[in-house]
Amino acid sequence: MEARARLRDDGGVMRIEIINTGSELMLGNVLNTHQQWLCKQLADVGWIVERQTAISDDGKSICNAVRESLGRAELVIVTGGLGPTSDDITRDEISKLLSRPLAVDAAVKKHIVDFFAKRGREAPAQTLVQAQVPEGAIVMTNQHGTAPGLAWVLDPNPFRESSRAVLLMLPGPPRELKPMFTAQSLPWLKTVLSTPVSFAVRTLRSTGIGESDVEANIAGPLAKLVAHGLVIGYCARTGEVDVRLSARGDHAKGIVLEAEQIVRTLLGAALYGIDEERIEEVIIRQCANGGQTLALAESCTGGLIAHRLTNISGASAVLKVSWVTYSAQSKLSLLGVSEQTLAGHGAVSEAVAREMAEGARLNSKADYAIAVTGFAGPDGGTDVDPVGTVYIALASRCGTQVSRRINRYERETFKHVTAQQALELLRRELLGLRQLEGKK
Amino acid sequence: MEARARLRDDGGVMRIEIINTGSELMLGNVLNTHQQWLCKQLADVGWIVERQTAISDDGKSICNAVRESLGRAELVIVTGGLGPTSDDITRDEISKLLSRPLAVDAAVKKHIVDFFAKRGREAPAQTLVQAQVPEGAIVMTNQHGTAPGLAWVLDPNPFRESSRAVLLMLPGPPRELKPMFTAQSLPWLKTVLSTPVSFAVRTLRSTGIGESDVEANIAGPLAKLVAHGLVIGYCARTGEVDVRLSARGDHAKGIVLEAEQIVRTLLGAALYGIDEERIEEVIIRQCANGGQTLALAESCTGGLIAHRLTNISGASAVLKVSWVTYSAQSKLSLLGVSEQTLAGHGAVSEAVAREMAEGARLNSKADYAIAVTGFAGPDGGTDVDPVGTVYIALASRCGTQVSRRINRYERETFKHVTAQQALELLRRELLGLRQLEGKK
Repeated sequence: MEARARLRDDGGVMRIEIINTGSELMLGNVLNTHQQWLCKQLADVGWIVERQTAISDDGKSICNAVRESLGRAELVIVTGGLGPTSDDITRDEISKLLSRPLAVDAAVKKHIVDFFAKRGREAPAQTLVQAQVPEGAIVMTNQHGTAPGLAWVLDPNPFRESSRAVLLMLPGPPRELKPMFTAQSLPWLKTVLSTPVSFAVRTLRSTGIGESDVEANIAGPLAKLVAHGLVIGYCARTGEVDVRLSARGDHAKGIVLEAEQIVRTLLGAALYGIDEERIEEVIIRQCANGGQTLALAESCTGGLIAHRLTNISGASAVLKVSWVTYSAQSKLSLLGVSEQTLAGHGAVSEAVAREMAEGARLNSKADYAIAVTGFAGPDGGTDVDPVGTVYIALASRCGTQVSRRINRYERETFKHVTAQQALELLRRELLGLRQLEGKK
Repeated sequence: MEARARLRDDGGVMRIEIINTGSELMLGNVLNTHQQWLCKQLADVGWIVERQTAISDDGKSICNAVRESLGRAELVIVTGGLGPTSDDITRDEISKLLSRPLAVDAAVKKHIVDFFAKRGREAPAQTLVQAQVPEGAIVMTNQHGTAPGLAWVLDPNPFRESSRAVLLMLPGPPRELKPMFTAQSLPWLKTVLSTPVSFAVRTLRSTGIGESDVEANIAGPLAKLVAHGLVIGYCARTGEVDVRLSARGDHAKGIVLEAEQIVRTLLGAALYGIDEERIEEVIIRQCANGGQTLALAESCTGGLIAHRLTNISGASAVLKVSWVTYSAQSKLSLLGVSEQTLAGHGAVSEAVAREMAEGARLNSKADYAIAVTGFAGPDGGTDVDPVGTVYIALASRCGTQVSRRINRYERETFKHVTAQQALELLRRELLGLRQLEGKK
């Protein structure tokens, strides 16, 4: 079975497409997070998605998209539209498209009934539609809901001559889709699809340098490796640039490793992490290893720095406390900022940032304390410190440093960029890179 | 010019497709947020996107996707690949696909040179590639970067017989794309595309009821309106269900309004907001109107509740302070939780949550204080209170109520769901709905 169903044993690169269904996606009501998550899971085993499509929940759109994708790809993953409501029509439409009639699957029906029984109630009649399984489909049990995943090895592929294809349908809610894909779909795909061509990728994440400067620095020294198959990608985000190094084939790993070493030498301290690593992860790991603790005093970032740090497992050993002192009064009473400083310099000032950080460090007995205060806008600001001005202070046993930045963005981006700068200031301090700040 | 170039004056629904380019999207390194944002901007003026596609930065993928989309749609928007680095090939590929040769545009070149001059430096040579403009393209100046947007009215559309199409290319970075689209692209599109068919949509956001129960409640009473063209969509998110009501044509607005009133009557207090409204917006607005203030004491949510509230403009008048008391010690010293309570009940307990909320209210003099304490996992938990257990306390002048929940999710979802429950507890209190809690 395994050998028979393997696809693309010819050594070619397997083509993969993802189709996300949902009218809410087309209206912009909901962010499509499945695309990134599924692409990442597949890339981790060397399967690179070639195309992702999102369409609304209507029969024609679904059938057209599935037919076209099967006409091009060996693996097609469809998400959404398997639930109990009347707009959940993916199962129905695909069963018709493939001429695989629906019939009640007793095991799925029992799962649905049990699911509700465990919650002390009878299964609503409408939920039983999810027990309808198209002929020949492999059923993947939904451990976190009622709609099962469904899959086929289509041999032959009805929409592409002399080829086979795998079609996988997954429920839309992320907390149902993710565990199902990880525990059931991916292991199954590995048994029916060909082992991927050797593929290596490494993303190096930098901050503080522009995109074209990053390329100007590294493109020349990497040219020899590009001639041997290295592919370089650049992705600019606010205040950051990712450099993606990838290669295929037998020497992929060695090429990417050599390229990584060259980029590390050239970009040095501007690199803060690899792959999906976030700056907060680097900080929590670094502090945890050194037994160091943190405290925060956040004004204009409003809790975001604490939120980002506490997303990281292990944060509880590092972050002692954060004060989100959104009112001026709370800066005085909770952090010990002096009334003279506040009156003389204003809440957004180097002096207040300094006293906030020192107060936070003193009150928490943490090794490091970060404080941020700024004008998020749209109101506020002065001639000297216009909207967007931020003071970031870092207090440690070596004293307190304060950095001033101008971040002219709308509210949420302003918070993100400011938090990123504060975390970067701390990262450089933790790595003993403070002296490099002046050299830039 | 305007009349000549208008598309689909036949009254048909205009077909729109979006193509996002970027190899980082296919590797799952980056979340595609353009899809949602662009769909939303277009839907707001009645243009509903029919299909969205994401592909990697390679010439064949880009050309195939653009050719196919132009073969189906009257408006095609392509994002990304207009920057200065070597993997930015969209401009080049589309210029070849449409046989519109590139030439340096003096105004764009000056913009790039000035952009760098303002930052006290010379434009790197590589950035000048962005001054290459394909023949006949309309140029949209990039106010926040160097790559211009480009657009054409293709008349005739080379990939679809007897039709015209608009092709719009936008730079990838969100803070360049968004202002360009709002200030330049959308106004221009309105002049060259036909006025949309009348379209009305309203999303009602509910919490605390399952998806199939929501439908069971409302589908029958809405059936008459469905016969008149109402389209109902359901979107389940963790702990929430959105009901989307839409209609097209002359009576669209009236039909959607009538449907909204029916759903409001049937779902009542379970509805917390409309369209993209977030529960934190409802709370900030409600508090600001009533002159009420808030304080928070967050343990397991780690600053997320403060972050969400401070994303809302106007939060500074409402949120006085948040303590992120991640360590047990900080609960004692900062919130006045008694040592006996902590020792006798443990940090995750009804008694500690109560004392945290009351301490936060007392220390801040806020009208309301919310406290959360729980076991986020993967470690921790007891026999009585397993991993996922959360106590949420709300203190007000009427006393303190504590709610216990079991949220078994991975770390970030756990934080999100817990924050949502805490905000919902507060929303119901603010609306005087506390008594309804017991009736569910």
